[in-house]
Amino acid sequence: MEKSRIGVYGLGVMGQSLALNMMNHGYQVSVFNKSHEVTEKFMKEKIENQAVVPCYDLHEFVASLQKPRCVFLMVTAGKVVDLVIDGLKDVLEKGDIIIDGGNSFYKDTIRRFQELQQLGLHFIGVGVSGGEMGALKGPSMMPSGDYEAYQVVEPIFLDIAAKAKDGKPCCTYIGKDGSGHYVKMVHNGIEYADIQIICEAYDLMRNGAGFSVEEIQHIFERWNKGKLKSYLIEITAEILKRRDEETGEYMVDIILDRAGQKGTGKWTSMEGLDIGSAIPTIAESVFARYISAIKDERVQASKVFNVESTLEIDDKEAFINELEQAVYAAKICCYAQGFELLKEAAKENDWTLNFGEIAMIWREGCIIRADFLEEIKKAYDEEAVPNLMMTKKFSNELLAAQKAWRKIAANIIESGIYAPAMLSTIAYFDGYRSARTSANLIQAQRDYFGAHTYERVDKPGFFHTHWE
Amino acid sequence: MEKSRIGVYGLGVMGQSLALNMMNHGYQVSVFNKSHEVTEKFMKEKIENQAVVPCYDLHEFVASLQKPRCVFLMVTAGKVVDLVIDGLKDVLEKGDIIIDGGNSFYKDTIRRFQELQQLGLHFIGVGVSGGEMGALKGPSMMPSGDYEAYQVVEPIFLDIAAKAKDGKPCCTYIGKDGSGHYVKMVHNGIEYADIQIICEAYDLMRNGAGFSVEEIQHIFERWNKGKLKSYLIEITAEILKRRDEETGEYMVDIILDRAGQKGTGKWTSMEGLDIGSAIPTIAESVFARYISAIKDERVQASKVFNVESTLEIDDKEAFINELEQAVYAAKICCYAQGFELLKEAAKENDWTLNFGEIAMIWREGCIIRADFLEEIKKAYDEEAVPNLMMTKKFSNELLAAQKAWRKIAANIIESGIYAPAMLSTIAYFDGYRSARTSANLIQAQRDYFGAHTYERVDKPGFFHTHWE
Repeated sequence: MEKSRIGVYGLGVMGQSLALNMMNHGYQVSVFNKSHEVTEKFMKEKIENQAVVPCYDLHEFVASLQKPRCVFLMVTAGKVVDLVIDGLKDVLEKGDIIIDGGNSFYKDTIRRFQELQQLGLHFIGVGVSGGEMGALKGPSMMPSGDYEAYQVVEPIFLDIAAKAKDGKPCCTYIGKDGSGHYVKMVHNGIEYADIQIICEAYDLMRNGAGFSVEEIQHIFERWNKGKLKSYLIEITAEILKRRDEETGEYMVDIILDRAGQKGTGKWTSMEGLDIGSAIPTIAESVFARYISAIKDERVQASKVFNVESTLEIDDKEAFINELEQAVYAAKICCYAQGFELLKEAAKENDWTLNFGEIAMIWREGCIIRADFLEEIKKAYDEEAVPNLMMTKKFSNELLAAQKAWRKIAANIIESGIYAPAMLSTIAYFDGYRSARTSANLIQAQRDYFGAHTYERVDKPGFFHTHWE
Repeated sequence: MEKSRIGVYGLGVMGQSLALNMMNHGYQVSVFNKSHEVTEKFMKEKIENQAVVPCYDLHEFVASLQKPRCVFLMVTAGKVVDLVIDGLKDVLEKGDIIIDGGNSFYKDTIRRFQELQQLGLHFIGVGVSGGEMGALKGPSMMPSGDYEAYQVVEPIFLDIAAKAKDGKPCCTYIGKDGSGHYVKMVHNGIEYADIQIICEAYDLMRNGAGFSVEEIQHIFERWNKGKLKSYLIEITAEILKRRDEETGEYMVDIILDRAGQKGTGKWTSMEGLDIGSAIPTIAESVFARYISAIKDERVQASKVFNVESTLEIDDKEAFINELEQAVYAAKICCYAQGFELLKEAAKENDWTLNFGEIAMIWREGCIIRADFLEEIKKAYDEEAVPNLMMTKKFSNELLAAQKAWRKIAANIIESGIYAPAMLSTIAYFDGYRSARTSANLIQAQRDYFGAHTYERVDKPGFFHTHWE
């Protein structure tokens, strides 16, 4: 029997989808799952004429693969990955390749990479974005590890990845060890912020200005033809159309305002803090989910702090345009923060990251997909700047949007709408463009109470004053 | 020779100050430092008639102590603590007590507590706040560990701790294992936010409204007689008086706006993220220090984003009053966030924390010391509420301040002054008091792109919609 080009280990929804995606691109794939029933069910329900080899034993699975063997893990991130790798270590041979496509924490990926390197095994961590549909029809893929090992699997990856409008696959080699999972993590951090800003805009229109769901639906549809055009704006317009089958109410009014999360936004925020990179809007977006979670407390507090919060809109059309500009400016800031974090992480971990290429592979397949990403690539291609906001294109956009952005922020404050991400972006912008902040006073205080010393504006060195 | 009641290990500025503090309270203290010269210098310069036993050998040090031996470590947090503990393990006996007074990370304290417990040794982690002067004249002390072991050292701790105006020592048993260091960490997190808000107020007056340093100095002096009265407001007024001896300029104008940090604010923010507790203002304050650090980038950006940022103030007196109210409201939010984190940490770590008592021991000795802390204690005594903002006292204060607070926030937006903490507090308040946030739309999106399911407003359970 012919050997399979690759094996997929783990047949959850993501694993099944990836295996089908590979098969649909003509690859013979072996599949393995700890529970045999899952494999049997998968074979029965999903597999028709494709070349697929179901395996019910690890030796059988490994024996069914061409050398060097490529095993694509799609199992739950965390300890399970280590357990699975432990099992594979015993049956694989030097030169074989383990690929982890889960949402693994990049430090785990670095550790696993090093451990497997000792054994002569290759390890590729690949961020896979796009959920179940993405995995099946084409995800955005962010692979990292040994470049040589990557080259073995690259043809498969390029085939199964999403294709941008220009036909280019949304997959590029990111860099060493854990860089792929890191980039995926930052993608998710940006996603949190992007989502939060869209939802704040909705909230300001709905509960601030008192627009109807139908009106807002039309506005999002319109926005999806302009600068904000993106998958998230598109699905928001779709969602706002939808009515609940049971009650006939708008779905958005039936869904409880308690948001879940799977941890990657939190990781991103913690990384920013740990590494010393300012990503306040991403952090505010994570905190907003925590605030959403304490629904009962909020309901109780709303009775105590019962504030009238209506916004008088004189010129609807002008307001909608201002809001569009404000959302766009805020969006630029979120992406700037994400790339800022990547810049610092690259320094810290000795990675060489190509920001333009990273933007390009987010154009399709993943949640933040948008034509906007191509603008980022162009902006980075044109000039080397320390922050995305400083590129010619985006600095001009920010300057143009500024007046509207400030007006919308004032509307938020006035109406009492909860919009932490939007407010955080304008603070970030104002901080970044401040030649002088108030940190001189912070340093004076720190020197006063803790003798922590300070620097001077007129000469180098560290100084201490006897304040008392 | 009479044996010493306690030994101090590590004669840096903090260790020396603590040893002197103990001696000044009549305790015979043994001292040890890795480098003998430091001990000799300390004896020569600082010790006159006090009962102090200099030790130049670990056996000698241990032999000089009464049983159970109490060894107070004041060494650099991190690996050094482990190394020192390793050395002490070999020379101490069952029942002896090691006290770590450094800024240790609470998870390290928990680990050390458990390791030493196996050996029959007691371990007390104590947060010590107040810097060099505090350590000498009376710090705020936050001890945790076995209550029985704590009782052995309690008389010393109560003697050396700061005394509040009512004479009560600023030291109370916090709880199990790492809780003392945790509470100290959160103290520092609150300190970051308190400092940031004060500095933002200064910045708005100085660079927004164009007040002179002298005017602002008077305003802080005045504020220190009102609701905001606190050590940090007091030293700000002192700092603003001070002129540079070399140039004759105000010190605050000579100091570079690049703020340092020692990591506890970062830890606090990361903990909030990790544990699921919303502390956005503390995180924004840490990010503000990161923004301050990239001075060169900011100067460059200020040329690109050269925005006119003056604030027209019609009624100065009214503006100053509004700003005072806004700073006060923001301050309540910061403390609410700190106590919120303590609440979640207590659940997570199975600690029983008394928030009122914790507020009481911050009244003197530490950086955030203020009469305000006594108000917190009273508010918590009166009623059990899920968040400090919900106490009768502070909810009334927030409602009263709200109008002024929103006006100041609008001023911030308008003037382009970098005030992320102030904006973050008002968002936090508005989020907390929102019976409905926009998280319903977040959940709809998450269910749309990732089948993450959602809850409904009209019945329990988790639901999924086939959106496409």
